[in-house]
Amino acid sequence: MTSTARPIDFRSDTVTRPDQAMRQAMAEAEVDDNVIGTDPTVAELERRAAQVLGMPAALWTPSGTMANLIALSLHLQRGDRFLATRGAHVLANELGSAAWLAGGMPDPLEHDAGPGRPTPDTLAAAIGSTGPYFTLRTTLLCLENTHNAAGGAVTPPDEHAQLLSVAKQAGLAVHLDGARIWHAAVALQVPPAALTVGVDTVSACFSKGLGAPVGSVVAGSKDFVERARRMRQMLGGGVRQGGVLAAACLVALDRTGELAATHEFARRLATGLAEHGWGVNTPETNIVLAEVPDLPTALGWLESLGIRTVPMAGKVRFTTHRDLSATDIDETLRRLKTGA
Amino acid sequence: MTSTARPIDFRSDTVTRPDQAMRQAMAEAEVDDNVIGTDPTVAELERRAAQVLGMPAALWTPSGTMANLIALSLHLQRGDRFLATRGAHVLANELGSAAWLAGGMPDPLEHDAGPGRPTPDTLAAAIGSTGPYFTLRTTLLCLENTHNAAGGAVTPPDEHAQLLSVAKQAGLAVHLDGARIWHAAVALQVPPAALTVGVDTVSACFSKGLGAPVGSVVAGSKDFVERARRMRQMLGGGVRQGGVLAAACLVALDRTGELAATHEFARRLATGLAEHGWGVNTPETNIVLAEVPDLPTALGWLESLGIRTVPMAGKVRFTTHRDLSATDIDETLRRLKTGA
Amino acid sequence: MTSTARPIDFRSDTVTRPDQAMRQAMAEAEVDDNVIGTDPTVAELERRAAQVLGMPAALWTPSGTMANLIALSLHLQRGDRFLATRGAHVLANELGSAAWLAGGMPDPLEHDAGPGRPTPDTLAAAIGSTGPYFTLRTTLLCLENTHNAAGGAVTPPDEHAQLLSVAKQAGLAVHLDGARIWHAAVALQVPPAALTVGVDTVSACFSKGLGAPVGSVVAGSKDFVERARRMRQMLGGGVRQGGVLAAACLVALDRTGELAATHEFARRLATGLAEHGWGVNTPETNIVLAEVPDLPTALGWLESLGIRTVPMAGKVRFTTHRDLSATDIDETLRRLKTGA
Amino acid sequence: MTSTARPIDFRSDTVTRPDQAMRQAMAEAEVDDNVIGTDPTVAELERRAAQVLGMPAALWTPSGTMANLIALSLHLQRGDRFLATRGAHVLANELGSAAWLAGGMPDPLEHDAGPGRPTPDTLAAAIGSTGPYFTLRTTLLCLENTHNAAGGAVTPPDEHAQLLSVAKQAGLAVHLDGARIWHAAVALQVPPAALTVGVDTVSACFSKGLGAPVGSVVAGSKDFVERARRMRQMLGGGVRQGGVLAAACLVALDRTGELAATHEFARRLATGLAEHGWGVNTPETNIVLAEVPDLPTALGWLESLGIRTVPMAGKVRFTTHRDLSATDIDETLRRLKTGA
Repeated sequence: MTSTARPIDFRSDTVTRPDQAMRQAMAEAEVDDNVIGTDPTVAELERRAAQVLGMPAALWTPSGTMANLIALSLHLQRGDRFLATRGAHVLANELGSAAWLAGGMPDPLEHDAGPGRPTPDTLAAAIGSTGPYFTLRTTLLCLENTHNAAGGAVTPPDEHAQLLSVAKQAGLAVHLDGARIWHAAVALQVPPAALTVGVDTVSACFSKGLGAPVGSVVAGSKDFVERARRMRQMLGGGVRQGGVLAAACLVALDRTGELAATHEFARRLATGLAEHGWGVNTPETNIVLAEVPDLPTALGWLESLGIRTVPMAGKVRFTTHRDLSATDIDETLRRLKTGA
Repeated sequence: MTSTARPIDFRSDTVTRPDQAMRQAMAEAEVDDNVIGTDPTVAELERRAAQVLGMPAALWTPSGTMANLIALSLHLQRGDRFLATRGAHVLANELGSAAWLAGGMPDPLEHDAGPGRPTPDTLAAAIGSTGPYFTLRTTLLCLENTHNAAGGAVTPPDEHAQLLSVAKQAGLAVHLDGARIWHAAVALQVPPAALTVGVDTVSACFSKGLGAPVGSVVAGSKDFVERARRMRQMLGGGVRQGGVLAAACLVALDRTGELAATHEFARRLATGLAEHGWGVNTPETNIVLAEVPDLPTALGWLESLGIRTVPMAGKVRFTTHRDLSATDIDETLRRLKTGA
Repeated sequence: MTSTARPIDFRSDTVTRPDQAMRQAMAEAEVDDNVIGTDPTVAELERRAAQVLGMPAALWTPSGTMANLIALSLHLQRGDRFLATRGAHVLANELGSAAWLAGGMPDPLEHDAGPGRPTPDTLAAAIGSTGPYFTLRTTLLCLENTHNAAGGAVTPPDEHAQLLSVAKQAGLAVHLDGARIWHAAVALQVPPAALTVGVDTVSACFSKGLGAPVGSVVAGSKDFVERARRMRQMLGGGVRQGGVLAAACLVALDRTGELAATHEFARRLATGLAEHGWGVNTPETNIVLAEVPDLPTALGWLESLGIRTVPMAGKVRFTTHRDLSATDIDETLRRLKTGA
Repeated sequence: MTSTARPIDFRSDTVTRPDQAMRQAMAEAEVDDNVIGTDPTVAELERRAAQVLGMPAALWTPSGTMANLIALSLHLQRGDRFLATRGAHVLANELGSAAWLAGGMPDPLEHDAGPGRPTPDTLAAAIGSTGPYFTLRTTLLCLENTHNAAGGAVTPPDEHAQLLSVAKQAGLAVHLDGARIWHAAVALQVPPAALTVGVDTVSACFSKGLGAPVGSVVAGSKDFVERARRMRQMLGGGVRQGGVLAAACLVALDRTGELAATHEFARRLATGLAEHGWGVNTPETNIVLAEVPDLPTALGWLESLGIRTVPMAGKVRFTTHRDLSATDIDETLRRLKTGA
């Protein structure tokens, strides 16, 4: 059954569209061929993103999936084992490229310290030797902050630091999937660079909740970024006049503070869903995961009410974003209550 | 030595910038999340590109390299041998992704029928069995029209048909790297679809000579395109509000006829270079390859005159495009003559 | 500290050496070039192994790792997710080839039904959709019987059948790592073929506990085995006069019944270790896993007593086999008691 | 039509069977578990093979294909270009593993210096830059001596040295496929080590013409061999009591001088084939390639006479070996003359 009601789109924060100011910045962007030379607007974005993320250098990529894929490909040798939290985007939502393309053998870590994060002991135990003679080489820890499948959960800086300490002592590299690192920074009221302390590489996304149509970055050492540039070209992610997209990303970078409003939307929505009788997480950022009696039925019913959501980890995921309003949240709760 | 003269940029036709009309189209593009649903402008581009290319369906990609990579990955099983012309873009200019990622074992065909193309006999001989018991499986022929490393050479439709006949009789799939298929169509004064007759898949590019900042397509059967969509996502080529880019590609698609002027530029330039004493091809489209006594010296001298070129297959490559003018060609020849 | 005592080797059942009868069979084996034609002794082994395993056809391989690798490579498309029990040999002990070479994205299943096996519900939950739009394709369940890291645990046929039922309903292929399937059959007092009912492919090993120096098989449909033969060649596992090895495997195949004695060794050893105060599993076959206060210390102390073991999943693994005797078990327990 | 005549087998020198002495050595071989420890006979073979080949260390492998695959996998980074002679075994006869598994992008070199070898100029030209901005990385030269598809042709040491000089100046690593290096050494009357001067790695085979049923080695620096050991395990080439096979390889290593007789067979056969009117190479070692009017017809006719051959590079390949006799050669020529 298709709804005739005005659709309210909670499918993802990737649905946010560029507004007039962002479109104008794109239309006026100075550009050059970014494969054979340097596009000045892409260069400016990469410089600023590196600075904000507290890393030596950064590289624009067409997607967060490619940003993560490049990082994993460069960190992992053939067959290397890497550790990531259960349900992490690199494990569950990138179509297996971490294994097939990056050649890594993943091992999931349980979220026993809280949503989206293992305890240092769990990490340490997982790193330990896995076999008697020839042994899998464990070389990478991949963290995710905020953690999508854990309902946008934030890893506190002190826990982050403890996990890094364990990883570093064991000689592991650390990649942070920071697709929504802006959300974590806003929620914690710290600058994003405070959340990358000690990591080797970090990815971050401008088209999740910030309105930029296309674009992520992967950041790390200058040497890493040079190798990443080559890997991006090999994967087909080298674009020509990328400045039109980077211009939008630059606008997005100035707007990360505005994400606080979407966190308020999520809390309001969660409260209403709980009143409706659904089990929900206490949203730390912009994602609400609702446990429902029967997932397909719930998804279909919501769709029939014009409330667009997606399944995630066996639950209904509602994602709030800048193209929603407080009125949309109220209207959503009204429809849930009245069933129409 | 760096030149103080106004640079004249022959490095590639990829350097063309979006003009005002194209930027306006981008700024006004209707968009949606192209990963989780359908962006209407991307959908419109894919529909129109498929039609113009004479294929059942098409998929937008961020680069021609990714378009080719997706096609090769879907045509080739692990270790399959594929045939391509010596110096083909998939062999020489895509950083080995055809082998590493697509898993194909390439074998180059000599250009013995003319620049950029083998004779049917050469193709037939190459297809023949390669070993005594376990034999490499040869499953794909990859053609390129126009052929970049062969100086923008055009394959005539009758030769194309003969090569396809040989390939099809042997059960091979055929992929056409049509990054510059628009040039071939203009030079031959036929519609692009006339050049894809019988191929299984074709890639085509909107950012080579047409001003679009970012974007290619790969086209084939509806089933192929569905699998290609998944492969694009796996490679990190799935973008969100891609409509801003597709809008530029749609403008480019309306402009392919204007490429004729750039072919005239190339002929004019070649004549002048020949008078300068350099061995040049007779340009069939927009690429001039000049044989010079000493390549590094020639490249440096040209750079010192503000004439920007690149090396290609041991020669100096000049590429003409819409951001050049007849005056630029004359000025280039004047600098060559006067050495200043 | 190195021991001067006669070493007692519990490192693995792979240490068993060919005896006189087996060596004679090897010396008298009829052979031919098994890559370009058919070696009669290899053919005989493949025929008999297929029969004993209850499968249409079988292929000799130089190792169990290669047998599993071939199966996974043929079952998995690039990036496909596969499920295997936590600590399974394909996950922990094959150096990541399942990911790098077979291109699979693994996901471990907990042993919540008992050592080495998940409940049907756990399996069903794991198979469920993993993402909102583009979703990982889950295509393979990999079981292991007996289960090495679970201490040689046996999966009962009825549990096996329930797991297969869940997998088949979801359209998954099933591969059984049967490196020690002979042990499971002996423990359950059923023919090996009773343990492969419903699986698509199975590997089995002749050099684990049976004395054959080199050799495993991977079995499945006739079509699977033809493709496996090619994959074996591609991996470098095609050997010439393989009959000298197959002859030993044929002898081993006649001896599987003798494994019962090694199970008795394991029970006797476990009883003694428990009396020594170490936490041990109740051995179902020929593997004893001992939990010790400090693993490196325990391993070193055992080595100093001439008792050779290996670490496995954080414990000390003792593996019993045909080159040990009841006296060896008693002597081991004596050294443990006396510390000399 | 199948022949009733006694078959004379020229299909390959891999058909040679172990004789009584070799079988006895195998039956008496001292063995141990070669994966978890060191098998003394394998260790002895590896020590002696390294010495004979003039390399610091060597590793036994189950096949020459795996020996080459390991070397290429360790020399090549993802997408690296490597150069090999047209028709080289690594290009034509290993089912594409150099591309799929080792991730290399091959480029064939013409045999313009003589059968099986390019001129230094051809090599130097091929190494040169292949593209304008992002450029394929060329990192490996792969030579083959003797060269199978070139009719067992020998590369003279001075030409070998010149090619290496060009490769080394360009920073390339060099791998020598020495499957039949013993033949080259015998033909040139030099020790095998004289033919590996300057190479980084070399493979050599004991089951081609020497009677060993199974086994090759790959040799190089001690560090290379340690990494090769791990790669062998990952590919499934780690075997347990490999000493039974290494014992045969040790016998083979003592017999390389006897290959001279098989070269005489080849010359005698070639002379007779030429008298029969077939175009043949002048055999330098044990391979005769005959050009025939129609390949399938010729192969069928030979088979009908009980003369077993294989096609190779569009010709009929006759390979002589120790299991043939002078009488077999004469009988072959008699059947050709009489057609019965």
